[in-house]
Amino acid sequence: MKIGFVGLGNMGAPMARNLLNAGHVLHVFDVSASAVQALVEAGAQAAVSPKAASAEAECVITMLPAAAHVKSVLTGDDGILAGIARGVAIVDSSTIDPASVKAFAALAQQQGNAFLDAPVSGGTGGAAAGTLTFMVGGSVEAYERVKPVLSAMGGNIVHCGDTGTGQVAKICNNLVLGITMAGVAEGMALGEALGIDPKVLAGIMNTSTGRCWSSDTYNPFPGVIDAAPSSRGYTGGFGTDLMLKDLGLATDAAKLVRQPVFLGALAQQLYQAMSTNGAGKLDFSSVIRLYRRDDAAT
Amino acid sequence: MKIGFVGLGNMGAPMARNLLNAGHVLHVFDVSASAVQALVEAGAQAAVSPKAASAEAECVITMLPAAAHVKSVLTGDDGILAGIARGVAIVDSSTIDPASVKAFAALAQQQGNAFLDAPVSGGTGGAAAGTLTFMVGGSVEAYERVKPVLSAMGGNIVHCGDTGTGQVAKICNNLVLGITMAGVAEGMALGEALGIDPKVLAGIMNTSTGRCWSSDTYNPFPGVIDAAPSSRGYTGGFGTDLMLKDLGLATDAAKLVRQPVFLGALAQQLYQAMSTNGAGKLDFSSVIRLYRRDDAAT
Amino acid sequence: MKIGFVGLGNMGAPMARNLLNAGHVLHVFDVSASAVQALVEAGAQAAVSPKAASAEAECVITMLPAAAHVKSVLTGDDGILAGIARGVAIVDSSTIDPASVKAFAALAQQQGNAFLDAPVSGGTGGAAAGTLTFMVGGSVEAYERVKPVLSAMGGNIVHCGDTGTGQVAKICNNLVLGITMAGVAEGMALGEALGIDPKVLAGIMNTSTGRCWSSDTYNPFPGVIDAAPSSRGYTGGFGTDLMLKDLGLATDAAKLVRQPVFLGALAQQLYQAMSTNGAGKLDFSSVIRLYRRDDAAT
Amino acid sequence: MKIGFVGLGNMGAPMARNLLNAGHVLHVFDVSASAVQALVEAGAQAAVSPKAASAEAECVITMLPAAAHVKSVLTGDDGILAGIARGVAIVDSSTIDPASVKAFAALAQQQGNAFLDAPVSGGTGGAAAGTLTFMVGGSVEAYERVKPVLSAMGGNIVHCGDTGTGQVAKICNNLVLGITMAGVAEGMALGEALGIDPKVLAGIMNTSTGRCWSSDTYNPFPGVIDAAPSSRGYTGGFGTDLMLKDLGLATDAAKLVRQPVFLGALAQQLYQAMSTNGAGKLDFSSVIRLYRRDDAAT
Repeated sequence: MKIGFVGLGNMGAPMARNLLNAGHVLHVFDVSASAVQALVEAGAQAAVSPKAASAEAECVITMLPAAAHVKSVLTGDDGILAGIARGVAIVDSSTIDPASVKAFAALAQQQGNAFLDAPVSGGTGGAAAGTLTFMVGGSVEAYERVKPVLSAMGGNIVHCGDTGTGQVAKICNNLVLGITMAGVAEGMALGEALGIDPKVLAGIMNTSTGRCWSSDTYNPFPGVIDAAPSSRGYTGGFGTDLMLKDLGLATDAAKLVRQPVFLGALAQQLYQAMSTNGAGKLDFSSVIRLYRRDDAAT
Repeated sequence: MKIGFVGLGNMGAPMARNLLNAGHVLHVFDVSASAVQALVEAGAQAAVSPKAASAEAECVITMLPAAAHVKSVLTGDDGILAGIARGVAIVDSSTIDPASVKAFAALAQQQGNAFLDAPVSGGTGGAAAGTLTFMVGGSVEAYERVKPVLSAMGGNIVHCGDTGTGQVAKICNNLVLGITMAGVAEGMALGEALGIDPKVLAGIMNTSTGRCWSSDTYNPFPGVIDAAPSSRGYTGGFGTDLMLKDLGLATDAAKLVRQPVFLGALAQQLYQAMSTNGAGKLDFSSVIRLYRRDDAAT
Repeated sequence: MKIGFVGLGNMGAPMARNLLNAGHVLHVFDVSASAVQALVEAGAQAAVSPKAASAEAECVITMLPAAAHVKSVLTGDDGILAGIARGVAIVDSSTIDPASVKAFAALAQQQGNAFLDAPVSGGTGGAAAGTLTFMVGGSVEAYERVKPVLSAMGGNIVHCGDTGTGQVAKICNNLVLGITMAGVAEGMALGEALGIDPKVLAGIMNTSTGRCWSSDTYNPFPGVIDAAPSSRGYTGGFGTDLMLKDLGLATDAAKLVRQPVFLGALAQQLYQAMSTNGAGKLDFSSVIRLYRRDDAAT
Repeated sequence: MKIGFVGLGNMGAPMARNLLNAGHVLHVFDVSASAVQALVEAGAQAAVSPKAASAEAECVITMLPAAAHVKSVLTGDDGILAGIARGVAIVDSSTIDPASVKAFAALAQQQGNAFLDAPVSGGTGGAAAGTLTFMVGGSVEAYERVKPVLSAMGGNIVHCGDTGTGQVAKICNNLVLGITMAGVAEGMALGEALGIDPKVLAGIMNTSTGRCWSSDTYNPFPGVIDAAPSSRGYTGGFGTDLMLKDLGLATDAAKLVRQPVFLGALAQQLYQAMSTNGAGKLDFSSVIRLYRRDDAAT
């Protein structure tokens, strides 16, 4: 299939490679010429604009940092909507707010294009391995149409409901993640201060009611889980600033629908305090440093 | 084995029955005569006091509401320490603060008795089925000695470390539990307000990074999990007031060791608000009612 | 002086009247024809657009609900910048975010107009009485130029610094106000629950270190201060939804400059919970209802 | 009048001196011999125990760190109740929980002694100057009886109601104080980050609705108020650990009467974080350091 692909960053580039590997023909665009060049060497065709990337596409995919970039790439003079053929679906895998998704979908609809939100989870590792989870919002018909394309990049393609619900699923999941991680950090640090062996404590949590991904897979206490960022100085993983962005989307969405989020708003401030103190690029599980008295040795 | 058992409430009574079923000889005491009578009918011997229950015991077990009760039962004129033989171990399965445990253990030690803290998880269901988890604090030697007795009441007997660490494990686990449940409530209610199907949202969380016991086993949103209290009007389960007690133990213990617990302290206030508004006896997952606009239909 | 005035709502209308009373010539515009008509009856000239209102003005004043309105009124085809003469100052008394102010000021600057942010405090009472406080951001020169005009509407005209600092002053003041009011509510409700007479408690606070405007002038406990909204069922005053808007501006601004606001973020959620439960139009001091067990009698 | 005085610490010693200055005869006791000696040199009589200090007293005053000390001094074998004559009033100026006050009052009542709670505000400065505020709980009759004695130590003697309400007044005031101080810290630090001059911002708050003691008298931002601890490196003043103690009393009392204290619980954690990081002895207004990016220069 001929696919237009816009946004070749840490996530977009490996996703585009997996499309190439699956035999698709790609026209790619990115503001970085070197990012485009790397994909061209892998077999893609360079496009001079989002418009050009979309001109002959049977499906267009975008993977961008924020809603403002999606808007520009979509509606600019050289944008996707200026080049795309009627009836072609646009899949946006960026993580952005549901309200923007609905506005973009309305614009696309006006000229006969379906716009699906399809944010992912699984990180750069999942993007490279082609095992991402796609949370897709849009009509069933459009979802069925793009599913084969997404399957080349992900292992789990979930239809969440109407336009915007893909973003809602991602935002709500990450709201819970941000809270549970800080909660586990609190519990582990309290246990340490009260004198229990952190591995014993984690072992009990993980077979009891405190069990969660933040405890059994990604425990923030150094040394409890060898493969977790906490055991390598909080390098790699999912950065504090990215968690902060997602909690910002969650609390903004909550504000819009007038929904209280007590713990989410407080968790956001905790990650903010970490970021302000210079830990923005560290994995978000480093939030445990707000609680531990002396982490010099870790 | 001859066992003294003090405290025949919702948890203690079924635990004592399992000891009888395992062939132990029980001398039981409770302030409620009818509670004692029910156990006598099951084959136990009635004792007139904790002292009397302990007089010939090879092991003494207590299961009481709070530290003040343990203190009174242990150190009163008619208490366990007044009747127990030298060298006999005392196992306290109450959930109390670690500092009290240490004080009680020191008293017991003075007259040659080991005192182990062994709080449980698993609720009244686990108590009846004999599948409780025991989190045990005390010396390895004492732990090995009482393990066979505890095995008649539980499926998972874990040695957590020195005296008090059993309580630490329970308190820290329940701190995380209290936070994750309110966090999941927040995420599910936000998702509802943003228009996603709650079952779809829970399905995504449960296969993603938001996964936790509060979401995949005990989801607070009505109808998502048939067997959860949320699907039967929040009846049964683990009461809000009990969660409130455990979060009180956690924040008190944190205060004692000068450890901040930002989310735990806020979660405690959320359950407090629920209890103040009359939901103290409902399952603690009813905390989601703080977030949902219209739960009349549930 | 010839003044263009755009925005004749609850605040703008009485402000415009005071300008008329001071002898100024007003060209007024509002989307509501009846609002314009009322001012015309008071002596103003009706304008068909912001552009028309600005055409001959020596100073233009705007008083609008949010940044989006200011943008539209300023930059629309029929907007102020399309009609205003070079060198004429524009004073925006709306409460909006500092970042928008800077963007608007840059646009105005491009065509030789000063743009000053001048949000007010004092409410509709102060607007009617002409006793508002104006917090003004902009150059000293521009401030000195518009000060005489503002003095017809306010009793206290404060120069806060460069462009945007007027909004910063208002936002930070109202952040503190939102926190102190909820804090006083918490203290008063706790005192009630602990059995002290609320008037006695308020008396002590007001002569001690808990003293604040929220306690000594606007106490949220009914009956403590006769003139406060709490003593008339929380009607009138400063609505919960307006406080919510201002806390939203504060937490958004904090997010932009990466500044944690722990208590502010939590206070925002408390007012959100009130608003969600139907108290959005009540005075914001009604937040005490989150704390009091039985306010049926009040 | 003959007065027994127990507890000659930073507060008790200057209070006792003011009683001597007013012509009273004092029998004093403290666990520190040097503290007793210093008072003896000022004209007091040394007593070997609280019992001895109370033996001939017409009024007994205690000023101790916590409820446990009051209990011991009151009910020990060598305690006040063992030595005091029937009908003599006991005034406890310690800051302790209202529930303990009621228990102590009941014990005193049993042997015909009134027990009044009379915690103070005003700090060591007010103690030395004799200008303390006394918040007194107890019967009107007992209050009238001890008022002349307290007047020698304080400038403002307030009857708060029945036994315990003196503590309630102090606890609720300090709950509000702890919240407003952290709130002002948040607002001032946000203003700094947004580029307004801190003195200008404080000036606006202090004449507007954000006005409070924490802003206009004790502003936490260095340099805004010359006489405040913030302007001398947060030395002197009211220590973070003392604020932490008082917020602990407030949240404990709230727990006992099942009253939510959302902001108070969070504020407690903020001061806890400060104390954990080594600022326990600094003035509590140093909580602003949690918010400011770079306070090296202050």
